[in-house]
Amino acid sequence: MEISTMETIETLGTVAFSISGSFAAMQRRLDPFGVLIIAFVTSIGGGTVRDLLLGDTPVAWMRDVNYCLLILLTSLATIFFKTHIKKFKVTLFLFDSAGLGLFTMLGIQKGIMFGLSPGICVALGTITGCFGGVIRDTFLNTIPLIFRKEIYATACILGGVLYFTLKYFNMKEDVANISVIAFIFVFRIVVVRYKLTLPKFGY
Amino acid sequence: MEISTMETIETLGTVAFSISGSFAAMQRRLDPFGVLIIAFVTSIGGGTVRDLLLGDTPVAWMRDVNYCLLILLTSLATIFFKTHIKKFKVTLFLFDSAGLGLFTMLGIQKGIMFGLSPGICVALGTITGCFGGVIRDTFLNTIPLIFRKEIYATACILGGVLYFTLKYFNMKEDVANISVIAFIFVFRIVVVRYKLTLPKFGY
Amino acid sequence: MEISTMETIETLGTVAFSISGSFAAMQRRLDPFGVLIIAFVTSIGGGTVRDLLLGDTPVAWMRDVNYCLLILLTSLATIFFKTHIKKFKVTLFLFDSAGLGLFTMLGIQKGIMFGLSPGICVALGTITGCFGGVIRDTFLNTIPLIFRKEIYATACILGGVLYFTLKYFNMKEDVANISVIAFIFVFRIVVVRYKLTLPKFGY
Repeated sequence: MEISTMETIETLGTVAFSISGSFAAMQRRLDPFGVLIIAFVTSIGGGTVRDLLLGDTPVAWMRDVNYCLLILLTSLATIFFKTHIKKFKVTLFLFDSAGLGLFTMLGIQKGIMFGLSPGICVALGTITGCFGGVIRDTFLNTIPLIFRKEIYATACILGGVLYFTLKYFNMKEDVANISVIAFIFVFRIVVVRYKLTLPKFGY
Repeated sequence: MEISTMETIETLGTVAFSISGSFAAMQRRLDPFGVLIIAFVTSIGGGTVRDLLLGDTPVAWMRDVNYCLLILLTSLATIFFKTHIKKFKVTLFLFDSAGLGLFTMLGIQKGIMFGLSPGICVALGTITGCFGGVIRDTFLNTIPLIFRKEIYATACILGGVLYFTLKYFNMKEDVANISVIAFIFVFRIVVVRYKLTLPKFGY
Repeated sequence: MEISTMETIETLGTVAFSISGSFAAMQRRLDPFGVLIIAFVTSIGGGTVRDLLLGDTPVAWMRDVNYCLLILLTSLATIFFKTHIKKFKVTLFLFDSAGLGLFTMLGIQKGIMFGLSPGICVALGTITGCFGGVIRDTFLNTIPLIFRKEIYATACILGGVLYFTLKYFNMKEDVANISVIAFIFVFRIVVVRYKLTLPKFGY
């Protein structure tokens, strides 16, 4: 049952990041092949880095062709339906935020499965959530998007702390998962919408 | 026997990429030490990423000092004979294409050895073939060389599809290997020579 | 006993790179969160790449929360005491050189523990010493610092050769360790101070 929840989260996160990657690539006018590559890299980036650090190899996408097919189909559907979508930036941003929440939760769960301490699980969740987008942006060479990178990581870390707080108060696993995913999704949108930033150092 | 074929391919690919890396580094006027480093990185880059993804560690070059010596000697020989070679760009390009074909085939074979499905094997072959050159170009900061990067990957993917097609028709292993290597080599040269590209999206 | 020496070296190296990372980040006026991230990445970068190549996973910092706490506290202390330090560049450089020596020695030791040949151990030591700084500089986008990158690697390689020479003449383990660390530290400072460089190719 636990595993099926994680599988659902993984599937949704893969779809979300595949769409976000496709949009980002189409925005930069890449050819169809380039769009597929970026969709693929965005979807598997975070999980691959996570599995490498854990030593859980061959990494996830190599063991299951279905994920590769899922990414391929999602990306093709995104290319196909692109003419119906007006607000590229907003759509890209929403799916990227959803993927961030879903993959962060997944990374935390995998850290717990490997018996790591809570602090390390939060770090692993943050890496899982953020690296797909970081690799995507590096490949597309779009460093300063509409959002600051620290906000990415801050949302994941706060989400991770929230998860272990909820578990401390014995919240049901599924409810805790959904709460954390929703929190990261909403937190990131609110921060970007109202342009909140961390205070800078004044030297 | 299978293994000896793979060893031959690995040796040839290592030599080819070591030469291509040395030329690329000399073209950028690096000192001898820098040339050795780039030759090394170009030769081992693809195989290292492949072994990390598969979890086949310590990675290949760590287990066998002979490969490191082979790269060192090839690179020194390249530095020594450089005055006899007029057409740097062409020589670099030919050896890079040969290495691409050889290492792609090697990656596919290793994927099969690990029991991965054909699609994943093709991806693994593409990664093995392309990453050495990608890391070399990143280190040398020469992003837009004379060839487009997609052509790199396209050649590898088509070569991979060709391999499984040949195997489907029960072609002998060695003949299939050589055919695929030759295909990737020739395909890349033809594409770059006649400046063929994939169609772009028109938004 | 051997292990306790290695642990001491690891602790000192972690502290040194954490300070160097914090200084580099504060120099670029990052917010406190960014400073922590850079301190963390600088400290764990080299060891993480080393453990990934060896397949010694989950990588070191995941298995031991204490290192993460050590980095956190060192970084916070550095932020706190920054007003008392005038010569940012010099302090950053000294701690970076100390970390380089300590982590190179640690990488060589770990290579020996894994039964690798001396040449590979030297390469592993060089990677362990250099990668933290390389990742830090890449994140901060400061490619041409006050020192050339080759000097980094040259110091590590010569230090590694020195280690195996000392061991060949049966020098005591601890004395050999300290000699190598001191050599790399002093060598790098002398080279940067007197602006020594390797000879370039003249085409």
